[in-house]
Amino acid sequence: MIKTDILIIGAGPTGLFAVFEAGLLKLKCHLIDALPQPGGQCAEIYPKKPIYDIPGFPEVLAGDLVDNLMEQIKPFEPGFTLGERADTIEKQEDGTFIVTTNRGTKHQAPVVAIAGGLGSFEPRKPLIDNITDYEDKGVEYIIRDPEIYRNKRVLIAGGGDSALDWSIFLTDIASEVTLVHRRNEFRGALDSVEKVQELKKLGKINLITPAEIVGLKGDGKIEAVVVKKEGEEFEKETDHFIPLFGLSPKLGPIADWGLEIEKNAIKVDNALDYQTNIPGIYAIGDINTYPGKLKLILCGFHEATLMCQSAYQRIFPDKRYVMKYTTVSGIDGFDGSRKEAEKAVVKAIE
Amino acid sequence: MIKTDILIIGAGPTGLFAVFEAGLLKLKCHLIDALPQPGGQCAEIYPKKPIYDIPGFPEVLAGDLVDNLMEQIKPFEPGFTLGERADTIEKQEDGTFIVTTNRGTKHQAPVVAIAGGLGSFEPRKPLIDNITDYEDKGVEYIIRDPEIYRNKRVLIAGGGDSALDWSIFLTDIASEVTLVHRRNEFRGALDSVEKVQELKKLGKINLITPAEIVGLKGDGKIEAVVVKKEGEEFEKETDHFIPLFGLSPKLGPIADWGLEIEKNAIKVDNALDYQTNIPGIYAIGDINTYPGKLKLILCGFHEATLMCQSAYQRIFPDKRYVMKYTTVSGIDGFDGSRKEAEKAVVKAIE
Ligand SMILES: Cc1cc2nc3c(=O)[nH]c(=O)nc-3n(C[C@H](O)[C@H](O)[C@H](O)COP(=O)(O)OP(=O)(O)OC[C@H]3O[C@@H](n4cnc5c(N)ncnc54)[C@H](O)[C@@H]3O)c2cc1C
Ligand SMILES: Cc1cc2nc3c(=O)[nH]c(=O)nc-3n(C[C@H](O)[C@H](O)[C@H](O)COP(=O)(O)OP(=O)(O)OC[C@H]3O[C@@H](n4cnc5c(N)ncnc54)[C@H](O)[C@@H]3O)c2cc1C
Repeated sequence: MIKTDILIIGAGPTGLFAVFEAGLLKLKCHLIDALPQPGGQCAEIYPKKPIYDIPGFPEVLAGDLVDNLMEQIKPFEPGFTLGERADTIEKQEDGTFIVTTNRGTKHQAPVVAIAGGLGSFEPRKPLIDNITDYEDKGVEYIIRDPEIYRNKRVLIAGGGDSALDWSIFLTDIASEVTLVHRRNEFRGALDSVEKVQELKKLGKINLITPAEIVGLKGDGKIEAVVVKKEGEEFEKETDHFIPLFGLSPKLGPIADWGLEIEKNAIKVDNALDYQTNIPGIYAIGDINTYPGKLKLILCGFHEATLMCQSAYQRIFPDKRYVMKYTTVSGIDGFDGSRKEAEKAVVKAIE
Repeated sequence: MIKTDILIIGAGPTGLFAVFEAGLLKLKCHLIDALPQPGGQCAEIYPKKPIYDIPGFPEVLAGDLVDNLMEQIKPFEPGFTLGERADTIEKQEDGTFIVTTNRGTKHQAPVVAIAGGLGSFEPRKPLIDNITDYEDKGVEYIIRDPEIYRNKRVLIAGGGDSALDWSIFLTDIASEVTLVHRRNEFRGALDSVEKVQELKKLGKINLITPAEIVGLKGDGKIEAVVVKKEGEEFEKETDHFIPLFGLSPKLGPIADWGLEIEKNAIKVDNALDYQTNIPGIYAIGDINTYPGKLKLILCGFHEATLMCQSAYQRIFPDKRYVMKYTTVSGIDGFDGSRKEAEKAVVKAIE
């Protein structure tokens, strides 16, 4: 059982910044995310695109924003359960909550902050009859750890940035990389498309277009796929089949937690602390809704900050927290680190 | 008469960011500030100190944050009335407001956003009987334009960063710089204190400590000050007397505008749009109050954003604004500039 002060569901920008604000209040956080990496939409959908409306950044790449947030929260040593979806929540007699993931990992905390964005990212799966039989037996929809492909034959399907970028990346790791797409045209960053073109010419990427995977073969694990190209079907041996057709967010199991839902989002009390109808459960960032709500990153930051103050009151009903400016009080990390502004000197001039 | 869409009172971080969010909605802004420079508390009180809780900045100097915000809003060409205090507001028959400053400058807009922080910064004045007679006649409490001191004799009083830094700065401009402080010890950044020490040794700064200015002399304008040092009084000729004893914020005339005030702050509807009890007048940032309010920069950013959406509805009651992500739609400056994310290419690989 993982125990923490604030359990955060969703490691997008909102959930990440909540760790910082909680840390200022000396509260520890643990984050659960269905994706294998932190950063939410910014990391998964548009890491290399610029955002122009983060206050103080005339321009920042979404991926860099996530990196900055990870650095900012580092002193507060957040825990992570990545690649797992929060599935169930149970309230205990002592008022704490236990949240269990689809892989059975259990987490306990007095406060739960749902920062789930548009929902947990679930892969779009190709329509192949027996594909579920091979999941985790050679079929992966998300690349969690590229090392498992070392010296293996991989076959990637897809025509977007993920398919292009992973094909490039895996040429250095896998013994054979095949890329299958139903069109000749790929859609992605210019340099990714050009790099794949070059690797194809060098014989490092095996390109099969326009083609589709229509069947899977293998005894207990993938051994080959059935490729259909221009009406003809043939088998291609492979150790892994990785369809990268994009991820789409689904509110999923959270919808059944007894929370008030409106337009696929969780209603919260924006006049106070972004708490849901269940005391102790908050919803912040893209996943919540209230009159005038804007699904913007900067709004999630504010909501996370006010939520943490309320969580503190809930956890320590008898203490009165007096807010201090970071500039004035500095930052004390849980790792013993300390950041502080240079102090003014008082010094005679003779 | 200066006309604009949103008239912002206060050019601190909140007021500045409001210009950006308004700009995204194609609304123009004009800012009034009592200080000679934008940036509010960040620029006036702690420009060289680091802030640790701006989301996405593990550390940023307050002055750099202001510079970044100025760069971020540049495409939206805000107007500025600096060094003037907004004193009166009148509602017109057509629903617009006219705001007049202490210097008589008039501004008209359908929406007024008060982003006045802790109030307009007013100088702490030394207790010298006839000092008001000499204001703007050789006595200045804030340095607006250093050029007026070229080849003049200046006498600065004070023992903090402003007194130290301006004394250093003016040695290159004024014909004579005298610094008077009631103690031998100065309080400021180490390098400022050391620089003054060095300039004193070089004879470029005339230091009189421990001493006080107790009288002012001159016919129509300052000609000399009376210095009291260790019980003795003597006259010192000077063209300018600049007491830099710090600025303290005062809610001031805004308190009489008919707005609901609580604990020296303006009550707003935080459940919707940060509007005050007077429709069309909003209050954002440190100057507003609501249940759970935190006087933090990041909260002002969020408030400014929601305020702009509401202002848009007020100005264009019949239009429906559909929010677009800056990453997706890019930024169109009023100056014709355009920023946008690189588009994905669709390209065949052969
Ligand atoms: C192309 C694009 C451009 C954009 N441009 C801008 C812009 O310019 N400015 C701006 O402010 N915003 C922009 N946005 C929106 C911005 O990315 C979101 O507002 C932001 O990511 C929301 O952050 P969040 O932390 O609330 O949620 P998310 O970033 O969505 O993160 C939520 C995380 O929670 C996880 N999760 C959800 N449910 C579960 C569960 N049950 N178990 C485990 N994990 C779960 C998800 O997997 C996800 O990683 C853009 C979005 C897109 C797609
Ligand atoms: C030493 C110090 C350290 C701080 N550290 C932090 C920190 O680490 N993190 C954080 O988030 N915050 C910090 N703060 C607080 C932060 O600076 C404020 O929250 C922020 O400046 C508020 O921004 P604002 O734009 O609302 O108001 P302000 O910055 O106060 O700006 C308001 C402006 O309005 C002007 N004004 C007011 N009334 C009038 C009028 N009638 N006419 C003309 N002009 C007017 C004032 O002159 C002023 O320039 C700190 C503050 C101080 C003093």
